[in-house]
Amino acid sequence: MSETTTPPRMPHDEPLEVGEYSMSADELVELLGPRLTAQRRETIDDVLAQRTYHVTTVLDGIYDRGNVSAVIRSAEAFGFQSMHVVESQDHFKEANRVTQGTDKWIDVERYPEPGECVSVLRERGYRIVTTELEASRPIDDIEFDEPTAMVFGNEKDGVSDEMREAADAQCILPIVGFAQSLNISVCAALCLREIFERRRQSGRHGDLTDHEEIVLRALYYIRSIERPERLLRGLLARRTDDAPRDET
Amino acid sequence: MSETTTPPRMPHDEPLEVGEYSMSADELVELLGPRLTAQRRETIDDVLAQRTYHVTTVLDGIYDRGNVSAVIRSAEAFGFQSMHVVESQDHFKEANRVTQGTDKWIDVERYPEPGECVSVLRERGYRIVTTELEASRPIDDIEFDEPTAMVFGNEKDGVSDEMREAADAQCILPIVGFAQSLNISVCAALCLREIFERRRQSGRHGDLTDHEEIVLRALYYIRSIERPERLLRGLLARRTDDAPRDET
Repeated sequence: MSETTTPPRMPHDEPLEVGEYSMSADELVELLGPRLTAQRRETIDDVLAQRTYHVTTVLDGIYDRGNVSAVIRSAEAFGFQSMHVVESQDHFKEANRVTQGTDKWIDVERYPEPGECVSVLRERGYRIVTTELEASRPIDDIEFDEPTAMVFGNEKDGVSDEMREAADAQCILPIVGFAQSLNISVCAALCLREIFERRRQSGRHGDLTDHEEIVLRALYYIRSIERPERLLRGLLARRTDDAPRDET
Repeated sequence: MSETTTPPRMPHDEPLEVGEYSMSADELVELLGPRLTAQRRETIDDVLAQRTYHVTTVLDGIYDRGNVSAVIRSAEAFGFQSMHVVESQDHFKEANRVTQGTDKWIDVERYPEPGECVSVLRERGYRIVTTELEASRPIDDIEFDEPTAMVFGNEKDGVSDEMREAADAQCILPIVGFAQSLNISVCAALCLREIFERRRQSGRHGDLTDHEEIVLRALYYIRSIERPERLLRGLLARRTDDAPRDET
């Protein structure tokens, strides 16, 4: 683990806000940790050890909400902490049945159009790799040494023109049947697992900085508690009660 | 390629039937071949070179038709020629939007209950490997030297008791997030591609026998033609016309 990444790739800033409270990640971890079971804290530690911002998933104008939700679930399952969704419609909500609640564990950022998403990816230091049916380069041939945004386009037309123009490389996941293509949620899962396996085998998959790790731990603790704001109110009131007072 | 497999793993018998006609695969290939473009014949040859019956896909009581269709599409894309579907309902039809027509290129056999499916798999010499959330053995650890039926269970309860009892091994596709599981069509695609890649890298993925290959070529030719029976009628009539006659 290194101390910080330059530029930051995480969409969270300290202090973190929980309702009316605004606190550092350290403070939240210290306060909330004892309220979770040891098993829960261990699960969270295991997940954090396999998390990465090094590769991020971008969904560029996917029509089907079920597909977006399925990709969120797969990305979460393979440790990819961040996702960027260029929306295809004005308003948009995932099919909760399909995410199985996994959307609460990763950072999903949304954009009304591709240009804005490209700017954010650039600011965060990602090169852009699009997946395209016409690409000649198989995904096996792409190196993931540099921070990379993997872009998946929509079911009909693939990636948008803006995203294609911004791309540093194109790749394809090779298939060998009569099928011209795979379902988009299947294609994304196969690409993400391919990257996960290659980085895992070289011991580089889980690579959060100390800062990223403590912030995510605080967020996971908050999201593991049903009413975190209410719990915090109780804990902070008790702390005040316990403090030495002038009159004693 | 070897001459035959013992026992046969293909659900097609010669002679093949096309409406009122009943012919050998050789004869059909000879008659229909010249009616296809060279490009079409080449595509079919490329697909055949990557086809296998060595590993077969089994869907055990999947509820969602979209999921069944998505798995058909993925299996076809990675060259797995046969699929066995234990139905969860009386009547059943794939979502064509999701298969993208790929169901016409692979052999999908259906069973009303798991026991019947197990018998057929045994007759054809497959060992049975189920995928289970509780299994401790990762799929990486499973060898695919023997002919293998990979079984995927339903969304709620996994594989059926009958299938579990018949299983020679259980395996799991390891994941590293909070998600307990993956979408079933995603899980199947990941397992199938894993098997495809491992067998491809050892040069053993496309392994049809000569007999399997000629029969599938005949079937692919038939399915590449819009009205094969009508075409055959015309071709056979012309052949009769061309034959030398007594009176000439």
